Amino acid sequence: MNRWEETLEQPSLGKEEVKRLEPGLRQELIELQQQMRTEKFSVVVVFAGVDGAGKHETVNLLNSWMDPRGIHTHAYTSAEEADAGRPRFWKYWNDQPAHGQIGLFLSAWYSRPLVDWARRKITDAEFEAKLKEIEAFERTLADNGVLLVKVWMHLDKVAQRKRLEELASSPKTEWQIKPGAWENWGNYRRFMTASDRIVEASEKAGRPWFLVNGKRKHGRQVRVAAHLRDSIQARLSKAPVSKGLAKSAWTRRMKPKRGTLAALDLNASLEKEAYKKKLKKLQRELYQLQHQAEVKGISTVLVFEGQDAAGKGGAIRRLVQGLDARQYRVTPIAAPTPEELSQHYLWRFWKQLPKAGQVAIFDRSWYGRVLVERVEGFADDAAWQRAYQEICEFESSLADHGMVVCKFWIQIDKATQLQRFKDRENTPYKRWKITDEDWRNRKKWNAYDVAVDDMLALTHLPEAPWVLVPGTDKYHARIQVLHAVCKQLRKVV
Amino acid sequence: MNRWEETLEQPSLGKEEVKRLEPGLRQELIELQQQMRTEKFSVVVVFAGVDGAGKHETVNLLNSWMDPRGIHTHAYTSAEEADAGRPRFWKYWNDQPAHGQIGLFLSAWYSRPLVDWARRKITDAEFEAKLKEIEAFERTLADNGVLLVKVWMHLDKVAQRKRLEELASSPKTEWQIKPGAWENWGNYRRFMTASDRIVEASEKAGRPWFLVNGKRKHGRQVRVAAHLRDSIQARLSKAPVSKGLAKSAWTRRMKPKRGTLAALDLNASLEKEAYKKKLKKLQRELYQLQHQAEVKGISTVLVFEGQDAAGKGGAIRRLVQGLDARQYRVTPIAAPTPEELSQHYLWRFWKQLPKAGQVAIFDRSWYGRVLVERVEGFADDAAWQRAYQEICEFESSLADHGMVVCKFWIQIDKATQLQRFKDRENTPYKRWKITDEDWRNRKKWNAYDVAVDDMLALTHLPEAPWVLVPGTDKYHARIQVLHAVCKQLRKVV
Repeated sequence: MNRWEETLEQPSLGKEEVKRLEPGLRQELIELQQQMRTEKFSVVVVFAGVDGAGKHETVNLLNSWMDPRGIHTHAYTSAEEADAGRPRFWKYWNDQPAHGQIGLFLSAWYSRPLVDWARRKITDAEFEAKLKEIEAFERTLADNGVLLVKVWMHLDKVAQRKRLEELASSPKTEWQIKPGAWENWGNYRRFMTASDRIVEASEKAGRPWFLVNGKRKHGRQVRVAAHLRDSIQARLSKAPVSKGLAKSAWTRRMKPKRGTLAALDLNASLEKEAYKKKLKKLQRELYQLQHQAEVKGISTVLVFEGQDAAGKGGAIRRLVQGLDARQYRVTPIAAPTPEELSQHYLWRFWKQLPKAGQVAIFDRSWYGRVLVERVEGFADDAAWQRAYQEICEFESSLADHGMVVCKFWIQIDKATQLQRFKDRENTPYKRWKITDEDWRNRKKWNAYDVAVDDMLALTHLPEAPWVLVPGTDKYHARIQVLHAVCKQLRKVV
Repeated sequence: MNRWEETLEQPSLGKEEVKRLEPGLRQELIELQQQMRTEKFSVVVVFAGVDGAGKHETVNLLNSWMDPRGIHTHAYTSAEEADAGRPRFWKYWNDQPAHGQIGLFLSAWYSRPLVDWARRKITDAEFEAKLKEIEAFERTLADNGVLLVKVWMHLDKVAQRKRLEELASSPKTEWQIKPGAWENWGNYRRFMTASDRIVEASEKAGRPWFLVNGKRKHGRQVRVAAHLRDSIQARLSKAPVSKGLAKSAWTRRMKPKRGTLAALDLNASLEKEAYKKKLKKLQRELYQLQHQAEVKGISTVLVFEGQDAAGKGGAIRRLVQGLDARQYRVTPIAAPTPEELSQHYLWRFWKQLPKAGQVAIFDRSWYGRVLVERVEGFADDAAWQRAYQEICEFESSLADHGMVVCKFWIQIDKATQLQRFKDRENTPYKRWKITDEDWRNRKKWNAYDVAVDDMLALTHLPEAPWVLVPGTDKYHARIQVLHAVCKQLRKVV
């Protein structure tokens, strides 16, 4: 007996039994919601399974039972115009519940791969790649505190036909049949093959599905509600164990090359006249390249990191001079707001991803996780160690989507920084740039050095490379940055 | 000599003079940006005028001069798919700069009315209605602390042709000619008539345009930059005067009918059996009605207000039981976050407006401005007095857009509240619902009574009515709410 047959063998709950169970269950769920409100985790419930097996009814029931202020439903249609060319997972990230909240996800990240494979729109290899992407997504959610509840609702082929016919029999319900539902029913066997593969992959990853017999209208909903209750209860009763860096399947990262920074020639420089000439030429080229990228719908993500006073701001300013103001957005990254703290640390960056054809420039970035959060101890060891993989997967998924991803580390030495700090303090209109925090950070120079070295070694990807920029001479640094951006764009336009 | 001829007579700045002025101006602007950072106002610069007069070049220049972390550009195309059927101003609200920030707006709220009228796509009356809508938008921004800077860049017909020919002469610049630019040029005279009307209306409203001669490429940008500097300087040098309720043009609101609440029959009730039957029937009807509304793309905004423990949550729960979870979102409104506090008070509500065909349910709402913020003194007198008009204009614009807008006030008396508070304290799973704040609010019962009476009298609009609901009997209240929602939907589907 396979897992689906077993599912259909689940003892059915009688109508009377359901009636008896309901009131207690509702109350327990409401109470758990209250207990969750002050906890530092959120609940993501993802639904999948056969059309007609009761996913929507179950979602509606949960919504009607629980406090609507703490539970939100997200359903996705295949054509999401509002995505404006962003990666597929952008919307799921955007819709993540904050701590203490529950999100119910319908027709979500499993939907398209399943349907596309069943309809032979994607190959086996593409299907597997999608599952890998899902694995990375769910892993980073779970590792960072999300309680992931996966509910698969099942029907056999005959029961599905009956359900569809039932809906079709009245004009009041006919519209509830999704376009393509009958076609999917005809493909039942291929759907089940793909479903098997999904359930297996989830099991292997340690994030298994809860399989539900969708035949019994009342019983199935109570079963899901009870599972949700049990899952939240289990989570509340024990502190989650933060997991360290997974060493297994993740082999894509390049070999750590320690000491890269030490090899950098910090004396590189450029004469003012040459600088002026090159700057103008490169800005003009960039303008044309970015126009071509825009026409092709290729978007770009640029990350600027570097010590305080390394010259990030100046380099960004010279870069954007070569862009049309409508095409880019500079996002300065500071300490997270309370709203951002109640989410996965990558959430605020996902939200800022550019539309098709646009450029997003991050003045500091998600690398804060492995720099300031590591050095200052804001993230525990497991969290920042895990982040190298999470960040690589994040950037790879952007590159896979066709984005240009390029990261700049601008490096200065300690003496140069001191000189610039003093210069800032002595120049009235630069004084705002220097704060006590800058001086505090400076004291941790060596700790940052180690963190930067690790970061460069562990997150340098062919599809999202680090460009190391000597920052002693600002002219040289700015030209190098412009050069690198043009080079990346030339490859794709 | 009319205003346009005068504009073209503006003395031109020589290239040398521009070069001499630039460095000081740049520095002043950067310094003003720093001074602004801790101020409680934002700067909105809106550009309009003849194509080719240098709007984009000016925006690019300002961006390259200033600290990119404090200045953002927003340009709009006519087809904004991401709007998903929301009102026209939704995107402008979404993009409002936070306090201390500058937003540059291109092809923004003036663009469509101007082009549409010039091309005879809208009538004179429609054009005037659009100007009125703009007036309300700009007024509420300005009244609530936004520094509004309006820049109109002008060219005569010959100069515009030259500019377009110049762009067309090289493949490197040809693509910069917007679709329809030549057609607009052919319509030059009608464009100027509409421009005149816009400039006049703005002058009358006390938010005039800064007219710039667009013929001189260098001079025009410096002129705009200097105007921006002067505007920010003027604002920094004096505290803004908060303006009171404008009594002039605003006559749409209904006559205040004081004492409406006192006339409400709080004894209205319903038997349990009748309740159950009606509930089921109305929920079923709602389900069908909302389906039809979704198909037609009609969205709905429902507001729930009422004393603590009046039964808002319970009424909302019974309402959403009649909806599909994919179709609605319940938004509970609490005290604003720091991010929300750095914006216009309506900003967070604009952001939450539903997509076409969806339902947004607000558990408390923008009426906090004239309730809790008034009673607790969080808003000064002028601010909450002004809010009645602002709220009416906000809701009217939603209704004009085709949305269903309906507001519920659920009323209980003081004794009923006391009884419910005690009940909550004595029931373990209800205890979370009652806080010290509820007891504090209760002490201000009379102050709230006055505020509620004013609110109901001043914001009851035919297109966004208040429904007064006696809340003593919860069954009766819930049925009345469902009834009213169905009634509103029936009118439009």
